[in-house]
Amino acid sequence: MVRYVYDFRDGDRAMADLLGGKGANLAEMTRLGLPVPPGFTVTTEACRAFLATGAEPDGMAEEVSRHLSALEAATGRLLGQSDDPLLVSVRSGARFSMPGMMETVLDIGLTDASVPGLAKVSGNERFAWDCYRRLIQMFGSTVLGVDPALFDQALSVCGMTREAPDDLRADACGLARLVETYKQLVRDATGRDFPQSPTEQLRLAVLAVFRSWNAERARLYRRREHIPDDLGTAVTVQRMVFGNLGADSGSGVAFTRDPATGQPGLYGDYLPDAQGEDVVSGIRDTVSLAELERLDPRSYRQLRDHAQTLERHYRDLCDIEFTIERGTLWMLQTRVGKRTAEAAFAIAAELVGEGLVTADEGLLRVDGDQLGRLMFPRFDTRAAGPEIAHGVPASPGAAAGAVVFDSPTAVRRAADGERVVLVREETTPDDLPGMVAARAVLTGRGGKTSHAAVVARGMGRVCVCGAQDITVDGEARRFTTRAGTVVEEGTVVSVDGSTGAVYAGAVPLVASATMRYLECGEQADCLVAAVARALEHADAVRRLEVRANADTAEDAARARRFGAQGIGLCRTEHMFLGERRTLVEEMILARTEADRDRALAVLLPLQRKDFTDILRAMDGLPVTVRLLDPPLHEFLPERTELAVRVASAEAAGGPPDAHDVELLAAVNRMHEDNPMLGLRGVRLGIVVPGLVAMQVRAVAEAVAERVREGGSPRAEIMVPLVGSVEELRLARAEVTRVLAEVGKETGVPLDCPVGTMIELPRAALTAGRIAEEAEFFSFGTNDLTQTTWGFSRDDVEAAFFSAYLDKGVFAASPFETLDREGVGRLVRIAVAEGRAVRPRLQTGVCGEHGGDPESVHFFHRVGLDYVSCSPFRVPVARLEAGRAALGGSGGGDTG
Amino acid sequence: MVRYVYDFRDGDRAMADLLGGKGANLAEMTRLGLPVPPGFTVTTEACRAFLATGAEPDGMAEEVSRHLSALEAATGRLLGQSDDPLLVSVRSGARFSMPGMMETVLDIGLTDASVPGLAKVSGNERFAWDCYRRLIQMFGSTVLGVDPALFDQALSVCGMTREAPDDLRADACGLARLVETYKQLVRDATGRDFPQSPTEQLRLAVLAVFRSWNAERARLYRRREHIPDDLGTAVTVQRMVFGNLGADSGSGVAFTRDPATGQPGLYGDYLPDAQGEDVVSGIRDTVSLAELERLDPRSYRQLRDHAQTLERHYRDLCDIEFTIERGTLWMLQTRVGKRTAEAAFAIAAELVGEGLVTADEGLLRVDGDQLGRLMFPRFDTRAAGPEIAHGVPASPGAAAGAVVFDSPTAVRRAADGERVVLVREETTPDDLPGMVAARAVLTGRGGKTSHAAVVARGMGRVCVCGAQDITVDGEARRFTTRAGTVVEEGTVVSVDGSTGAVYAGAVPLVASATMRYLECGEQADCLVAAVARALEHADAVRRLEVRANADTAEDAARARRFGAQGIGLCRTEHMFLGERRTLVEEMILARTEADRDRALAVLLPLQRKDFTDILRAMDGLPVTVRLLDPPLHEFLPERTELAVRVASAEAAGGPPDAHDVELLAAVNRMHEDNPMLGLRGVRLGIVVPGLVAMQVRAVAEAVAERVREGGSPRAEIMVPLVGSVEELRLARAEVTRVLAEVGKETGVPLDCPVGTMIELPRAALTAGRIAEEAEFFSFGTNDLTQTTWGFSRDDVEAAFFSAYLDKGVFAASPFETLDREGVGRLVRIAVAEGRAVRPRLQTGVCGEHGGDPESVHFFHRVGLDYVSCSPFRVPVARLEAGRAALGGSGGGDTG
Repeated sequence: MVRYVYDFRDGDRAMADLLGGKGANLAEMTRLGLPVPPGFTVTTEACRAFLATGAEPDGMAEEVSRHLSALEAATGRLLGQSDDPLLVSVRSGARFSMPGMMETVLDIGLTDASVPGLAKVSGNERFAWDCYRRLIQMFGSTVLGVDPALFDQALSVCGMTREAPDDLRADACGLARLVETYKQLVRDATGRDFPQSPTEQLRLAVLAVFRSWNAERARLYRRREHIPDDLGTAVTVQRMVFGNLGADSGSGVAFTRDPATGQPGLYGDYLPDAQGEDVVSGIRDTVSLAELERLDPRSYRQLRDHAQTLERHYRDLCDIEFTIERGTLWMLQTRVGKRTAEAAFAIAAELVGEGLVTADEGLLRVDGDQLGRLMFPRFDTRAAGPEIAHGVPASPGAAAGAVVFDSPTAVRRAADGERVVLVREETTPDDLPGMVAARAVLTGRGGKTSHAAVVARGMGRVCVCGAQDITVDGEARRFTTRAGTVVEEGTVVSVDGSTGAVYAGAVPLVASATMRYLECGEQADCLVAAVARALEHADAVRRLEVRANADTAEDAARARRFGAQGIGLCRTEHMFLGERRTLVEEMILARTEADRDRALAVLLPLQRKDFTDILRAMDGLPVTVRLLDPPLHEFLPERTELAVRVASAEAAGGPPDAHDVELLAAVNRMHEDNPMLGLRGVRLGIVVPGLVAMQVRAVAEAVAERVREGGSPRAEIMVPLVGSVEELRLARAEVTRVLAEVGKETGVPLDCPVGTMIELPRAALTAGRIAEEAEFFSFGTNDLTQTTWGFSRDDVEAAFFSAYLDKGVFAASPFETLDREGVGRLVRIAVAEGRAVRPRLQTGVCGEHGGDPESVHFFHRVGLDYVSCSPFRVPVARLEAGRAALGGSGGGDTG
Repeated sequence: MVRYVYDFRDGDRAMADLLGGKGANLAEMTRLGLPVPPGFTVTTEACRAFLATGAEPDGMAEEVSRHLSALEAATGRLLGQSDDPLLVSVRSGARFSMPGMMETVLDIGLTDASVPGLAKVSGNERFAWDCYRRLIQMFGSTVLGVDPALFDQALSVCGMTREAPDDLRADACGLARLVETYKQLVRDATGRDFPQSPTEQLRLAVLAVFRSWNAERARLYRRREHIPDDLGTAVTVQRMVFGNLGADSGSGVAFTRDPATGQPGLYGDYLPDAQGEDVVSGIRDTVSLAELERLDPRSYRQLRDHAQTLERHYRDLCDIEFTIERGTLWMLQTRVGKRTAEAAFAIAAELVGEGLVTADEGLLRVDGDQLGRLMFPRFDTRAAGPEIAHGVPASPGAAAGAVVFDSPTAVRRAADGERVVLVREETTPDDLPGMVAARAVLTGRGGKTSHAAVVARGMGRVCVCGAQDITVDGEARRFTTRAGTVVEEGTVVSVDGSTGAVYAGAVPLVASATMRYLECGEQADCLVAAVARALEHADAVRRLEVRANADTAEDAARARRFGAQGIGLCRTEHMFLGERRTLVEEMILARTEADRDRALAVLLPLQRKDFTDILRAMDGLPVTVRLLDPPLHEFLPERTELAVRVASAEAAGGPPDAHDVELLAAVNRMHEDNPMLGLRGVRLGIVVPGLVAMQVRAVAEAVAERVREGGSPRAEIMVPLVGSVEELRLARAEVTRVLAEVGKETGVPLDCPVGTMIELPRAALTAGRIAEEAEFFSFGTNDLTQTTWGFSRDDVEAAFFSAYLDKGVFAASPFETLDREGVGRLVRIAVAEGRAVRPRLQTGVCGEHGGDPESVHFFHRVGLDYVSCSPFRVPVARLEAGRAALGGSGGGDTG
């Protein structure tokens, strides 16, 4: 018989799949002997069964009833009992934390009949009516689907608003009248009375939580966070404790250390005479825990001790929700806490230092996204103007952008390529798309645990919240600073999430301490030391090599400083730009073979010098040179522009520029409707063989020169866009010929490996054949993604990617995170079939995915030899390659 | 012990893999008791071993020597014996016929010492010296690699040319001097003497034949004909017989029936006092076999009897090479003969009628390419001007084009899209690329068995040869007719390969009899009856259904007449062109949803009528409607053109057309760098859902209308360019919604199947997922080829396909014949994984490959349910589907 309900005493934290994170952690705290209000959890399995069939699974109702009876027995009260009612909270709790996404109904069990009893036992009639009012409001909107705005209207008639509910304006009598209004609202909207059966309330609330799993907003969140849709949520039912019973009560949120910096010591927010919801919502301003220590030293000490217990037990930063009911501390929730990138590294280093976790575990506590964030530049405050506002530094980093005042505007303007800063009085889950689109979030209300802060930290957005010195007028699309400055929509501001400062205009940026360490080894502080330790450990455990994509000696040198073990992709076309463009033009416009050869001969020494410099910078390490890839017309002017210039000159009566006319003829001749699918890559090399010969000669002569200089050049020649082994065979023959020729001329034996990009589906599908001719495969996952999906990044990203992400076609852009099902399958096929033919085949990836954390893990699992990415992603790739070797997951592990 | 040599008496025709076609057929004729000069064959296995190692395999030399001794014993003479030398021919003979591709050396065994002996026994000193001269010339160029032009020069010094060798100008003495010159040439070119050891001559000749397998020309031919490179060639060594011993000798080529029409009766060419090579080369004008009957009735009767024996034994048209040596008939070669399309059908029908072959075998004797050729139109001779020339109708069909006089020009101008007619005095294997590129070939010399005729028939090119009334001047790039008309390069002529007529200018075309039969069932003659019988039998045995791609009721009706069993692809975008383009423009330019809906509402009844008409034409048969596929900007004017128009108007001072300006803004906004990889297909449907809704509504209303009319409409809705099941799920939901809506409105239940194109690699790779939502898969092999290879047909075909075909990257354009290794693998994956999820999944193909013979066979083997192709290819696909069901091969079986 399947069991659908677990008492808190029967579970533990290992059961999060079944009990959800919240339920599992409540069980764990109960097991540890911490003061947890008693209760039980209905499992995710029950939820899945309910969502699949639309009905409670057999036996669930009986189990709930039995556990409720046990709870009633334990508390000595019956649910909704009229003289002294047991009240319970009903909360969702899934396997993965989904802040703000899930549902809560408090005070279940209150009815017309039990309000007086509650008033009597609490000694506070106003409190009792307020609880009832809250129940109807939460139950009405969450369970019965009544528009919440209707409740807000009714509230405001009483002189209260949900945003600033000065509940004290209404006395018990007024609240009792409000309850009547609310009940009428429920009747009008649903055609039935607010349920007066406590057990019916409970049952409906549990099912509503189940249903909320499939709410549009929750689905969106899961898609963004790559959380599977079929997990379902558990539901915890727990005896209510009240933080709003007067000055000796209150609610708070605490971290076992500072989640922004990782500094040890209890850290958090407290709100006297309030329920927990009020703390998180940011509706009222909280006080620090130091203030709690002053107000209620005993509860504070208990909280501090419990926090220590939890941190040592969980061996990690925990966050805690607690309530003090008339001087008694209750622990309502705990979990491993979200943290900033800084805090993640600092905490990991400290816990390793304390011996609480191993170095391997420490490495799994940080991730590449966090490291990437630490590498972001900071504002150069010397160049900043005066602060126009200051708030809570809630999510670190520095970003500038045009201010916008609502989520749709943020999404729209960001889609147009603009950097925007979303400014809200406070954020709600509805603001999620805007927060994703914005570079930074600025709010007028709320602390470090407010919705804005938690969500922004989770997604790595810069956030300053609770900037009380600004007045946000979303309607008028502006905010006003304390100094009276009016900042209209579109004005650029700079937001420093590490300090809380907001500046007018775009403040210039300087390198972060982490970046300075990576660039020149400077270990400025203990954060940097923590980063260094994590990277060193990653290097020690990883199997994947990390190379860089670099086209200049300068990039190569930087990549090497960042730890690159070679260049996985040196794009030679970049050497055809700038002042050399005219030479390339001559080569393209050449009318005879001789003219073309002359133009190529002029380019040769230039390319040779490029290669010599790069090989010098990467001395002793492999440098994979890709032969020219783009279609030649890419080096000529844009067609429409040129045609318009020539036509305008003609229409104006003058003769058009002769060079323009010549260029236009060439551009028209070479025009391709789909240049990405045109005459490029190895095709060019086969049709215009002189080009390959010149490039190979430049590489070969550079190698010979470096050998003469006493260096250890390790050039590899890579043929792009191969679709068939025959193409590679032809290109390789030409490469080998030129290598032999230069080897003979210089007396330096040139045995550069020759390999190919695997960037077309056909290359992957015939990899066994291609491996006959290739000493290495380098997966060009950008092009491979384009051809496998049949869309070009430039053309489609803006056109429909946001719609695709919204509608769940993608969990992430396939250009950012490798599409494992489609593109990844081709990579697997090619690796397996290539190695079957050539067991020592080198395999790597040189698409942008090489620096994407999740993709790095995939490449590790597939068994590639290396990833190659932009120099700035090299440290991220090193870290993730290490985590992958330890079996870590692709995303962060700390969420 | 491997056996490398077989006496003709030890083999048979089933051993063609080992003995080559020539060796196997010589053995078969020997077995049949026909008069074959004795000899033996060195196997293809020996050749493969030699090519792999560069040395004769162990034991081969001894075996050759033993068989030579046996031959010497049988003939009573020793090879090169001075008083009465045994002479042998050495010829290549591969598994597949490669006309003109392979090597021959005659008169092996002649030396300085044996020339007088040959003179004595032949009673003809001049003959002996001429044989020796020929040996040195052939051996020198084929075996020793001496430039043949050097021999030609020496010949011309004697007043002879290879092209027109009037050998009689030199007497025995002159030829003896020529031999001396030749021997000196060999010494100069190779640094050694012409070998005087008969056995060394033999050994070197055999090995040279082996080596010739890998000659560039042979490789090119094999690539074009899809013959594997690793078969190797066998070598036949055979006692020489001489057709050039006087008037009672001669050589000829015969067919057991007319290879152009299939008419019964011996047919061929004869050349008195000549060797076989002279007949095939077309150097001298042949006489008909009727003339042979007059000259040598006994030999003629023997030949006729042997031909009958062969045809009844091979149960097919055979071609025969024979030589008469002083009144004795010798059979030198036979094989199943090449034939025209007409002849193929006529012969197959007749042999089936005679009971010599079964109906299945008869079907395997014809192929779709041949049927396609019969469907080609013929010249409307009533509209033709006077004939300017007349020659031998060597390969039927009608084609017009600009005359060119060499192969490179033909290739170049054809690559530019021009239709060309290659005109040569005679063709050689070097002309092959030009013959491939040309629409027709016209030669001044040679009969139906000349190189030009054989090759042109083989590849289906129109050919008229031996047009003696023209004088071709290749140097001056013109030919002159008997009437004195000078036809310069570039002038258009019309060539009728069925009648031999050549007309000035482009003659209009009329439908062929086969086409009239297909169109209206008219069985004009026995050829058409033969075609009808083959198609009926194909229909009876095939498993693949054949549908048509048709976008109009007219095309649908034609396709149905041609035997289509439904429409596999109805492209709705074609309904957006013509006069409706302005409506589509309005829809695209709409600024509001309402404007767009209005424009769509105007389009709706127009599309509905299209569908109603098509469903009416295909009543009772499935009609697969594909939702709009191309990007919307394709319906707007071309960008550069528009930009130039606007800019020119501006530069000229006037205001540009306001509509142009609006259009240009839209075109710029919607511009895509790679529209093939842009916002199209299902992506459009997801981003612009009103479009899908309108199209589905049009289909649904048309179905309802047809049902009300009493018809049996069977519409299927096909979603294009799906890459992920999520896309299809979204599109399908919209389709289902509209179908239900229209079903409700009309009261007609609408349960159209919904399926998808599989035209992206990702769709194939995730077919198991996609099959969850698809009731059918239709492989869009055009797009699938483009994305799998990463090239767009329009952009690359002209740019590098001819280079790729030349260099052997492709055996055929992957847009014509499905690339089995790459694209085909995806098709296999998708079929297998789709069916695993949905066993009753319908699968078909609607790319152009659906009408390509070789591809049809592949689709049969993969197990598709149907192919869909253009209406005109429907009969071809029916025929090939039948052949595939019988296990026939994709190409012709008769080559």
